[in-house]
Amino acid sequence: MIRSRFSKPLKELLSKDEWLILQENYNPAENLTYESLFCLTNGYLGTRGSYEEGTDKSIPCTYINGVFDQSETFMRELANMPNWLGIRLYVEKELIGIENCEVREFSRVLDMKKALLVKRMILRDAKGRETLIEGVRLISRAHLHRIGIRLYVTPLNYQGLIEVESIIDGSVINFCDAPRFKVKHTYMTDNSAIGETGAYVEVATRDRHQHVGTGSIMRIEQGGNDIMKSRVFHPFGEQAVEFRDFELEQGSTAIITKYASVYTERERQRNHLKECVSREIDDFIKSGFEAEIKDHTAVYARMWEEADIRIEGDFELNRAIRFNIFHLMSTGSESDDRINVGAKLLHGEEYGGHAFWDTELFMLPFFAHVFPRTAANLESYRYHLLDAARENAAKNGYKGAQYPWESADDGTEQCPAWTIEPDGTCYRCYVADYEHHVTAAVAYGVYNYVKITRDTKFLYGKGLEILIETARFWASRCEYNEIRERFEIRQVTGPDEWHEPVDNNLYTNYLAKWNMRYVLELVQYCRENLKQIYGELDVTETELAEWNCRQEHMYLPQGRDSKILEQFEGYFKLREVTIKAYDENDWPIKPDILNHLDRQQTQVIKQADVMMLMYLLPEEFDEETRQLNYAYYEKRTLHGSSLSPSIYSIMGLKVQDASKAYRYLQRAAFLDLKDLQKNTREGIHAANAGGVWQTVIFGFAGVSVLEDGVLCIEPRLPAVWNSISFRLHYGEAWLEINISGSQARIKRLAGDELEVRINGKSTWIK
Amino acid sequence: MIRSRFSKPLKELLSKDEWLILQENYNPAENLTYESLFCLTNGYLGTRGSYEEGTDKSIPCTYINGVFDQSETFMRELANMPNWLGIRLYVEKELIGIENCEVREFSRVLDMKKALLVKRMILRDAKGRETLIEGVRLISRAHLHRIGIRLYVTPLNYQGLIEVESIIDGSVINFCDAPRFKVKHTYMTDNSAIGETGAYVEVATRDRHQHVGTGSIMRIEQGGNDIMKSRVFHPFGEQAVEFRDFELEQGSTAIITKYASVYTERERQRNHLKECVSREIDDFIKSGFEAEIKDHTAVYARMWEEADIRIEGDFELNRAIRFNIFHLMSTGSESDDRINVGAKLLHGEEYGGHAFWDTELFMLPFFAHVFPRTAANLESYRYHLLDAARENAAKNGYKGAQYPWESADDGTEQCPAWTIEPDGTCYRCYVADYEHHVTAAVAYGVYNYVKITRDTKFLYGKGLEILIETARFWASRCEYNEIRERFEIRQVTGPDEWHEPVDNNLYTNYLAKWNMRYVLELVQYCRENLKQIYGELDVTETELAEWNCRQEHMYLPQGRDSKILEQFEGYFKLREVTIKAYDENDWPIKPDILNHLDRQQTQVIKQADVMMLMYLLPEEFDEETRQLNYAYYEKRTLHGSSLSPSIYSIMGLKVQDASKAYRYLQRAAFLDLKDLQKNTREGIHAANAGGVWQTVIFGFAGVSVLEDGVLCIEPRLPAVWNSISFRLHYGEAWLEINISGSQARIKRLAGDELEVRINGKSTWIK
Repeated sequence: MIRSRFSKPLKELLSKDEWLILQENYNPAENLTYESLFCLTNGYLGTRGSYEEGTDKSIPCTYINGVFDQSETFMRELANMPNWLGIRLYVEKELIGIENCEVREFSRVLDMKKALLVKRMILRDAKGRETLIEGVRLISRAHLHRIGIRLYVTPLNYQGLIEVESIIDGSVINFCDAPRFKVKHTYMTDNSAIGETGAYVEVATRDRHQHVGTGSIMRIEQGGNDIMKSRVFHPFGEQAVEFRDFELEQGSTAIITKYASVYTERERQRNHLKECVSREIDDFIKSGFEAEIKDHTAVYARMWEEADIRIEGDFELNRAIRFNIFHLMSTGSESDDRINVGAKLLHGEEYGGHAFWDTELFMLPFFAHVFPRTAANLESYRYHLLDAARENAAKNGYKGAQYPWESADDGTEQCPAWTIEPDGTCYRCYVADYEHHVTAAVAYGVYNYVKITRDTKFLYGKGLEILIETARFWASRCEYNEIRERFEIRQVTGPDEWHEPVDNNLYTNYLAKWNMRYVLELVQYCRENLKQIYGELDVTETELAEWNCRQEHMYLPQGRDSKILEQFEGYFKLREVTIKAYDENDWPIKPDILNHLDRQQTQVIKQADVMMLMYLLPEEFDEETRQLNYAYYEKRTLHGSSLSPSIYSIMGLKVQDASKAYRYLQRAAFLDLKDLQKNTREGIHAANAGGVWQTVIFGFAGVSVLEDGVLCIEPRLPAVWNSISFRLHYGEAWLEINISGSQARIKRLAGDELEVRINGKSTWIK
Repeated sequence: MIRSRFSKPLKELLSKDEWLILQENYNPAENLTYESLFCLTNGYLGTRGSYEEGTDKSIPCTYINGVFDQSETFMRELANMPNWLGIRLYVEKELIGIENCEVREFSRVLDMKKALLVKRMILRDAKGRETLIEGVRLISRAHLHRIGIRLYVTPLNYQGLIEVESIIDGSVINFCDAPRFKVKHTYMTDNSAIGETGAYVEVATRDRHQHVGTGSIMRIEQGGNDIMKSRVFHPFGEQAVEFRDFELEQGSTAIITKYASVYTERERQRNHLKECVSREIDDFIKSGFEAEIKDHTAVYARMWEEADIRIEGDFELNRAIRFNIFHLMSTGSESDDRINVGAKLLHGEEYGGHAFWDTELFMLPFFAHVFPRTAANLESYRYHLLDAARENAAKNGYKGAQYPWESADDGTEQCPAWTIEPDGTCYRCYVADYEHHVTAAVAYGVYNYVKITRDTKFLYGKGLEILIETARFWASRCEYNEIRERFEIRQVTGPDEWHEPVDNNLYTNYLAKWNMRYVLELVQYCRENLKQIYGELDVTETELAEWNCRQEHMYLPQGRDSKILEQFEGYFKLREVTIKAYDENDWPIKPDILNHLDRQQTQVIKQADVMMLMYLLPEEFDEETRQLNYAYYEKRTLHGSSLSPSIYSIMGLKVQDASKAYRYLQRAAFLDLKDLQKNTREGIHAANAGGVWQTVIFGFAGVSVLEDGVLCIEPRLPAVWNSISFRLHYGEAWLEINISGSQARIKRLAGDELEVRINGKSTWIK
């Protein structure tokens, strides 16, 4: 048991191994990766797993979802907030820190069940003094503005005076380890004491002057008594430091607790921020750190009741699946309907915290089935930014609403037209110019959210407003080809970004067609059943007719002499290059020819594209078509995006080719835990995390919702799994599903009785 | 030859070994010591020998003499100024720094002849890339506001893009490595670009809002061409960063030059600081780095013409003596008469840059004989602060002027009444309460300065004003003992600080007596010869009579039954403890009994006290008295102060006991170079440096000025020395003195003919 490594209070706190991610050694080269893996977030803010004492290699970020800034960069990105983690212990002025001392013992553990980061280390300083430091870090989900750290400090072979600095560091910047890209998004507006000698730093974003207050107060106890000797507050430029000291006998343990809090102008008035932080900390201290952990873990217990997936027979994979669920569910917010979930969650700097199509197509199914309230907030986020999407469409010469490829707080396009390469050259980035399918993804998100939650109130209100505007966009986006008598979408980039731009990407055209068609159906339904809503719809009959014409005549590239569909017009004419070799992890090796040839000229693709289409619109394609295309494209996909393996896993299962599905799931589930893409340091791959969940639930467990609204289960468990169990929301129902082999049992935990179809056989769940 | 380690430009620049202090290895544990040893200063500002890229162990200080601040501390101390050294090189985001890379080759050299810090290192990064970095650092003495660094960067086994950050870091604090004592003495008032992308940080002291502007512009060249690719300025909170990059071929060398400048409100108006810095840098760039080095080394060449001491036959010691002279002469200012020379020079934090009696008794003789203009400034400093000394006397209930034990910019007492111990306890410090002899030292300084320089204009003006006020202080300080019919000075601490306080410290009483007597003689001289001056003197006949009475009846503790003088009343009754054992360096070992007994209760003393007296007033004591007391006190002195060995060395020679004189000189000369006191990290021992010079010149070379004004030379060279030569100012004359064995030759370089006495024999130098 991993927890047996720790002393009593932490041993009793920690969960069983199946919930723990263990770091066994300290290697500075892995710091940035572990900072992402061990990031804690409560949806309101996230703090990476940096060390309290600070290390040389470190990107110590705290992000607050919704607090963006642009300044000199090309996009509005999550502004790095003052680092509240700092706790530095000194004995005779020597820092007792991981990089100043010999590390005699080391363990860090992410307890996913309780959402706590726990550590234990024995550090030996240059004078041979050994100190045992254990600790637990908390980003409370019971009270979103309470964050804290408790350290247990024990001098093992000495006694004496220990000095402590508790630091709020406002000098942080974004991209601190990349000299060319460094940017400071905040300026300091206050550095002062809070309480008697606690630390308080207030900063404001540089563009919009959004204020954020961060404060902390430190307590040092032994056996319940305050053992602090002296204390003082230092305002050092952008650092606020609370200094304290205490005497400790050899072998006895001091408990150092840092009670901290953050408030922003998003929640409170600017001139009340310090007061709010101060009051929150006082209340936190009053109720106590242990009580807060209790409340917090109670919230997580309820969340895991919703979200856990239990697999018998595949311990490591099960833990890895939990890891993905843990970070995804922790980042989603059940309380804030103006924020989204960034492509790297709140766990890293890459993509600036922006929302992509990743949200709707990879994460939303998880939230809709597991945390419907969070899913509703994600929908609200898009609705709030509908006006910005309208402006975006108008700006680009289209009608309706064009959602930005990258979305931050104000809905303007945040995918930059220009970027700077690592060598300093400016690079014209065409992604936002051509990659338009995100607007269809937003529409599909509305459809899918409603399909799963049956939230018709949303659908026939805000949802329909989004849908009409996205249909309107697509109608204006396609062009009529008079020679071929069809509507086309030219100069576009599909999911496969290695071919940019192309004409008539099948995925995009199909989704555009689907978007218009779906709206037409909904309008028709309203006309027939919801007269009042129909009367209020902002759409004319002429328009509807026009949309119908366009969707009917939308060009959909077909196969030449088989059912293999052409990814885009001209794809088949490209040099045929297929994957021939696999590495030791059974992962495709880039064909050598790509070292000499521009991949744009070949059939090699980055990620699921036609397959993505078949995944989203399964009923549009017959089984043979799906099988042929899977076989064809699987051989051409290099999975250069983390959005690919999970889709191929699910689709492999759906086309009865399970040969690689389990391998793809392994790839996806361990993508970050094993840093398989070599960029986990930049954050957790959020879409992949959602993809892992979909692969397990929609792929192996075989859950689907048919167009007729019946929940289907057709399990295809890997041989190594004895059973799997999980819970889902579907409409009003909350179901517990247990699958052994091909047998599924469903228990209704809430909601009305409902019909389900297990392995093609209908049954009523009572 | 040490310089053969370097590439051509530096090889050609560097001096011969006799001028070089070499650091051969990088050991972080020695960083702080080398920061002191390799500090460069031009008298205006000093910058410690920290590394450009920054290291974990570092106290990177830049001090400007005269810019003090108190804030939360107990005293006004030199405020650490923005660190202008920062230059960080990156290859693919990896810092090419001494602590991030494997150090394949390493040399740092202080070139004392040219006052340059030169380095060479080959660093191998984690990817095996090897970079040769050589460099030279300049604090120009030709233009006091020009400071700069030039680096030569050569990729040895790779080619590619190198990124550079040039940083002005305003986040510095004082005592940054001591959590309890950390203090920030400045706040930032500006962080903006200078020139196009240069860095400018303006800070102000917190108490008196004295503004200081620091700026820099970086140039990157190869073969005379600007090879910079892109550049940008970043204001990061308190750090101003100029970013640049360039491409470099394997084996070719880029020259990176950081042109920097500092101006303060002491020299320029606040609102012109940035403009001054900017203009100075522009001029600096225009004339060029090499031209500045040339001008700077020309100034140093002239300074060494004055200051060098050449010893044949003792290479290492000679270099060590130069080392002491180098730092002392570099710190003295020939242009600013409102600053002093701190006890640790501008080289470290200890004592906050304060002036002590160290200035007058240990350093002033050097400056008066070698740099008389600097000596004159030191006298002016005391004169400017005479009013403050008057207020200090009045505050303490005395008359006249009482100079503070520690003096900063405003002349108030800066020796704190309370200090905080490392364990946090408050400690009542009585030094300022009892240690009054500094006021006599200031008076003695006037006397000695005039004796050496014959600056009678000063003497019969400002000097006499100081002297009268100090005499007035002593007259008020002593008390009449009616029983014993004598004047006494009770509750006082002499040079030996281990007995605090005592009654009637012989040194103090004698100097007080001397002070009053000297003033009486001067007044008498004025009365007879300088009637106008006499008429303007601020002293009454009654007072003069009173002073005469007091000096005549000043109690001077005598020996009981021998000529051994009692250090203070009651000293002989203390437990007799003498030094019995010496360590492997022939240094006294603390008698074991002191581990059990308070040293205050023993005869063991910290430093020269009676010996100091005999050194200052040689004509007051006969030879036997001097010999007996030397023998007696030498056995009781543990040299707990760096002010002690040099005095014992000189006095040993003067009493014909040369047995230990050479050992004492070695001790003193290598005190910092070998970190013998284990506190060189806190700065260079300035008094000791002056003591080394005095030991060599007044001790071994046997130079003295008799009361009749004749310069005497009675050499007592150590056997190992073949010869010694040096130059001295004496009055208007500038003399070159060459001594071989007991033979001395004197050459007059400037001034009128004069009479000297060599080994007792008078001769005229023509």
